[in-house]
Amino acid sequence: MKTLGVLGGMGPAATVAFLARLQALTPATGDADHIRVLMDLNPHVPDRNTRPGEAEVELGAMARRLAAAGAEVLAMPCNTAHAQAAGIRAAGLPFIDMIAETTAAAKATGAGSVGVLATGGGRALYAPALSAAGLTPVLLEEADQARFMALIYAVKAGDVGPGRRVEMRALAGRLVAAGAGAVIAGCTEAPLLLSPDDLDAPLVDSAEVLARVCVERCR
Amino acid sequence: MKTLGVLGGMGPAATVAFLARLQALTPATGDADHIRVLMDLNPHVPDRNTRPGEAEVELGAMARRLAAAGAEVLAMPCNTAHAQAAGIRAAGLPFIDMIAETTAAAKATGAGSVGVLATGGGRALYAPALSAAGLTPVLLEEADQARFMALIYAVKAGDVGPGRRVEMRALAGRLVAAGAGAVIAGCTEAPLLLSPDDLDAPLVDSAEVLARVCVERCR
Repeated sequence: MKTLGVLGGMGPAATVAFLARLQALTPATGDADHIRVLMDLNPHVPDRNTRPGEAEVELGAMARRLAAAGAEVLAMPCNTAHAQAAGIRAAGLPFIDMIAETTAAAKATGAGSVGVLATGGGRALYAPALSAAGLTPVLLEEADQARFMALIYAVKAGDVGPGRRVEMRALAGRLVAAGAGAVIAGCTEAPLLLSPDDLDAPLVDSAEVLARVCVERCR
Repeated sequence: MKTLGVLGGMGPAATVAFLARLQALTPATGDADHIRVLMDLNPHVPDRNTRPGEAEVELGAMARRLAAAGAEVLAMPCNTAHAQAAGIRAAGLPFIDMIAETTAAAKATGAGSVGVLATGGGRALYAPALSAAGLTPVLLEEADQARFMALIYAVKAGDVGPGRRVEMRALAGRLVAAGAGAVIAGCTEAPLLLSPDDLDAPLVDSAEVLARVCVERCR
């Protein structure tokens, strides 16, 4: 078994949901069957959209500290921050790429057009990754994208109530109506407001994909 | 704000529930309001009941690694392992004592007799702590204590279904029937099967008490 290092806190609730998924996906009959996780839940990483250079430096420092503490494989349950993955990879440990793994999972659904629920930064990672995999990205129109971002900030403020769930479901439905044969929840806050049952197409949950791959690589 | 170091994994689900509570108790309108948490979720700490010496050495090593990584205050959401707290304190950081804090919270309910749902090791910590605080500990009889331990191992195996909740509620009710004016959930797995509504007396949840004190000390 390998020790997993988690760069977390972007955001805090998404990180805890990721840890819960990691455990749920681990075949276990007792404590000792679970993966050891070293985590730096750092809610103070500089803003990935407005201060990307500083964010990359900080994420690199977090990765080095996790490596020094004994982590053997690294993962980060935040899609947007993968734009700064170079800083993490420089720490020298294998880094599980959530964008690449989620894109592969979307491809495996058999859909040709894939909807993306993600931040602006996340869309800038997923759109080329999907195209490179021969898939057509389907994105929200501008006004709906602003609504999506408002929902993400609501989650970060602790609001995951039924009203917010209705709004997120409507946005995901908009992507299906626009031709998406599958929808990527490409922001780790999104699945806190969205379940597979909410959609008429497969939901590819980036946090669940990442958790599954972490279990495969660490056990 | 101070960085919290968490010695976790005893058990894994209880640690994740603790992190979720910590966030729920943190006044926050966005990511940056949350506490930074360095965590070693180590499900492979030697058994605290059968190999206490080895457990103390391992917990001490975890505490030193968390300190080296930047933790400023330490906490451990496992009551039983507090018997090995000396190893943790030797790392030199302030360590929030869950047994002492939970005992103080039980005293604050005004109850004179306090029921304890805990492992054998946890009872051996709580009984003298309650007595020293002028409170009378109320413990499960032997057969019920064995049922309690079976429930804890069920949680560790991932079973938190309604049948298990009914059993835990019955055990807590047994303590109230025996005269407890408040009941301590003195094992961090216990509240995964027990809510305040399940009882006719105040429930003092050790994990919630610890989370509250962590927020007070780190923000």
